Amino acid sequence: MNSKTADIRSDIAFSTPDRIVVRGKSLPDEILGKMNLGDFAYLQLTGKTATPQQSHMFNAVLITLVEHGITPSAIAARMTYAGAPESLQAAVAAGLCGLGTVFVGTTEGAAKMLYEAFEGAGENPDLQALAVKTVAAFRERKQIIPGLGHPVHKPIDPRTPRLFAIAEENGMAGKHVQLIQLIQKEAERASGKVLPINATGALGAICCEFGFPWKIVRGFGVMARAIGLVGHILEESESPIAHKLWHEIEDRASAHLRG
Amino acid sequence: MNSKTADIRSDIAFSTPDRIVVRGKSLPDEILGKMNLGDFAYLQLTGKTATPQQSHMFNAVLITLVEHGITPSAIAARMTYAGAPESLQAAVAAGLCGLGTVFVGTTEGAAKMLYEAFEGAGENPDLQALAVKTVAAFRERKQIIPGLGHPVHKPIDPRTPRLFAIAEENGMAGKHVQLIQLIQKEAERASGKVLPINATGALGAICCEFGFPWKIVRGFGVMARAIGLVGHILEESESPIAHKLWHEIEDRASAHLRG
Amino acid sequence: MNSKTADIRSDIAFSTPDRIVVRGKSLPDEILGKMNLGDFAYLQLTGKTATPQQSHMFNAVLITLVEHGITPSAIAARMTYAGAPESLQAAVAAGLCGLGTVFVGTTEGAAKMLYEAFEGAGENPDLQALAVKTVAAFRERKQIIPGLGHPVHKPIDPRTPRLFAIAEENGMAGKHVQLIQLIQKEAERASGKVLPINATGALGAICCEFGFPWKIVRGFGVMARAIGLVGHILEESESPIAHKLWHEIEDRASAHLRG
Amino acid sequence: MNSKTADIRSDIAFSTPDRIVVRGKSLPDEILGKMNLGDFAYLQLTGKTATPQQSHMFNAVLITLVEHGITPSAIAARMTYAGAPESLQAAVAAGLCGLGTVFVGTTEGAAKMLYEAFEGAGENPDLQALAVKTVAAFRERKQIIPGLGHPVHKPIDPRTPRLFAIAEENGMAGKHVQLIQLIQKEAERASGKVLPINATGALGAICCEFGFPWKIVRGFGVMARAIGLVGHILEESESPIAHKLWHEIEDRASAHLRG
Repeated sequence: MNSKTADIRSDIAFSTPDRIVVRGKSLPDEILGKMNLGDFAYLQLTGKTATPQQSHMFNAVLITLVEHGITPSAIAARMTYAGAPESLQAAVAAGLCGLGTVFVGTTEGAAKMLYEAFEGAGENPDLQALAVKTVAAFRERKQIIPGLGHPVHKPIDPRTPRLFAIAEENGMAGKHVQLIQLIQKEAERASGKVLPINATGALGAICCEFGFPWKIVRGFGVMARAIGLVGHILEESESPIAHKLWHEIEDRASAHLRG
Repeated sequence: MNSKTADIRSDIAFSTPDRIVVRGKSLPDEILGKMNLGDFAYLQLTGKTATPQQSHMFNAVLITLVEHGITPSAIAARMTYAGAPESLQAAVAAGLCGLGTVFVGTTEGAAKMLYEAFEGAGENPDLQALAVKTVAAFRERKQIIPGLGHPVHKPIDPRTPRLFAIAEENGMAGKHVQLIQLIQKEAERASGKVLPINATGALGAICCEFGFPWKIVRGFGVMARAIGLVGHILEESESPIAHKLWHEIEDRASAHLRG
Repeated sequence: MNSKTADIRSDIAFSTPDRIVVRGKSLPDEILGKMNLGDFAYLQLTGKTATPQQSHMFNAVLITLVEHGITPSAIAARMTYAGAPESLQAAVAAGLCGLGTVFVGTTEGAAKMLYEAFEGAGENPDLQALAVKTVAAFRERKQIIPGLGHPVHKPIDPRTPRLFAIAEENGMAGKHVQLIQLIQKEAERASGKVLPINATGALGAICCEFGFPWKIVRGFGVMARAIGLVGHILEESESPIAHKLWHEIEDRASAHLRG
Repeated sequence: MNSKTADIRSDIAFSTPDRIVVRGKSLPDEILGKMNLGDFAYLQLTGKTATPQQSHMFNAVLITLVEHGITPSAIAARMTYAGAPESLQAAVAAGLCGLGTVFVGTTEGAAKMLYEAFEGAGENPDLQALAVKTVAAFRERKQIIPGLGHPVHKPIDPRTPRLFAIAEENGMAGKHVQLIQLIQKEAERASGKVLPINATGALGAICCEFGFPWKIVRGFGVMARAIGLVGHILEESESPIAHKLWHEIEDRASAHLRG
């Protein structure tokens, strides 16, 4: 290996004729039959074996993001499958392309907000003071506070207390979880509105407890939703709705042109 | 609801202000903290709760498909991330787009071959006769038998005996698993070549034991690989290789033009 | 350059500090301001400068494929944009993912059918005999003849006579165009149905006149539709329909579950 | 049409059994054979017929964006095609997914900067003062000025003078083109560096002369590059490089793991 090649490296996996090793573990001998999918995702991403507590929490994080009903993502995937049923992978890909700032961004936004709140705040910060400061800064910039509020799930997002309970049970309800709860109360006080912590807010806080970089948090939504979209495509293949919807939408959208 | 709307339906999930229900189960109360990600994928796809045996087997199936090293898929995802780091979801989507007939097709091909072998074969078919007939048909059409042979893992794909052992332990080593083993022996006899059952062959047979339609089998590879690709993008964000590779490839590919 | 690197090459383009050369031509000096986009596409794909006749024909081929109204592709692109407006490129990509065997496949299917009809038919084949043989073969296999029939444009697809007239005017109405016309007549005779040559049939025949490999014909639909989809996304950004459609579809699809 | 349907509309196109109308024009009668692809793109996007001057300029804008050699985008498309050659559309889609903030963002960035510079500046602003103010603002925020500088094309990007000459010839070298030229001089003066206006800077300024919203400017790069990527996939299908590159990259990247 010369200097030119030395810096192209990936530490995730390798294989030889008789071995397949992921993150230092033998896939056949140490992983298959011994881990569940969420734990393996944790290993893939962190290089570490999840503790039982981390396993419970991380599986719950990912499961929360798998299935959100007939979303724009699911519609895009089904429309794509209608045109290219031989390319199931492209239908999932099309569905994932829309998981951007509008639909999953608030997870990463919440994580980013919480990390930034603690920056330069020292070892034992006054959480209430951080919450007040954070809410004031968002309000001054006229920005929506990520992770708060939900168009349907009011006054409580039913996933949030459950996720926080699982965090509590597994020793993961630390300072980031506490801070978002204080931010919520302060935001409700300052705005006079009902602003429940939504699922993405809860997940963002929990991802901070894990220590995941906020930039990768969106990736949890992406990988979880891939599972959900395969479910939608399976259903579309058995009980299609895309063609009927297409014709209806086309008729409605161009009715004024046909006169 | 009138007749026009009656036929647009999805049975997967719904929500109300205080409920989120997936496949008939309350997400907060019956799923979060009580299932692992593989089991939830099983529920999402089948509408059924996995038995402990199915849980072990299905988690192993999906885990096998998550990470295969620096594949063309991983390279495509990393190249995409280099151009659009703000769109992590699009990088995963780009990587998934290539999971077609060359790289994951053999899983569905093996499942299709096994299902078709049993079509019209009655209740208690002679498996050895089916194997001989199947191999002869592929050889006559000069087609490669899906699920056999591997460019690297010779003479044995190390995942295969482990997957079959897990199938055996969980009561899932039924007639499809037996048939692919007989097909392998017959194919080796007829061709004189070493043709191990590769992981996609083993997975295809196991998917038949589950009863999954062969058309959705590719979807398992797609959803599993989405996890793997998020891992690659996380690594790319921390230890990038795409830019360096790009410049090297461009230099090499156009050297003859620049003269 | 050693033997290891010699075989990685691309002949399309290169650049140096003061030059950008595509297909042997200086982009600033010989292309910009001197070609239209269709001609440049022709150069990019073939390495040749289009004659005026080829220019007229090829621009018409591509234009025919740009815009087909509110298609599943356009819906997928708009749904994706609704979720990730910051990733316009991913919305176009999502829309393109569905241009598979159902919606653009008949263009490549028609081209393939015509090329195969002439295989082994010698220098001056009897076109009528080839038409009869081709139709009989499709009917025997119970396959739909690609490029014939249209759900809306009956009894004539209005694009087809215009495309053939442009072909005639530009000396490109050769044996492939003649053959598909004979195939149409024979198919109508044999089936007793009205089967107009649709636009994809006309385009497939014209692509054969150009000599394009049938495998790349789908690419014309893909690159043309990318233009159309940017138009849809621009309209979606100004007069959005995706969010409203999403909520309507979700309500309808899960009404039976909410009870 | 009732109130429920009134607000779902698209004004781009419609068809009836004997008509296909795009932007108010009959596709067969008024478009095919009478427009080139760039002009039709202009019609699709703006609803207006390009003047001859606009036609020259807009075709040049799009052509500039089609082909940039072996880019990360082209590598992603080729890698995807290697895995799913049956889904050419997905390979193009994968390539487009990476046209984000790093590679085409500077076009929209330049357009945005120029539009913002003129906001609130009145009818006859002092362009030199606007240039000084703009450069100072970017420097204060320690942001790179979009559209200036190029890693390879130094001291001049050869596309820029040609694009500006075409703009001049066609009466489109207005205030936005003038402003970016003043910004360049001021940026070079302030930084002491050589900072040529690159192609994306020139294109951004010209897009402002057209009056295109800055948010859609990225779309021009996306639709143009779709053409370029089809060219790369055609070449990949005839002279493949993806498999060889994959194996080389995998070997290099995991050499340290195999030991």
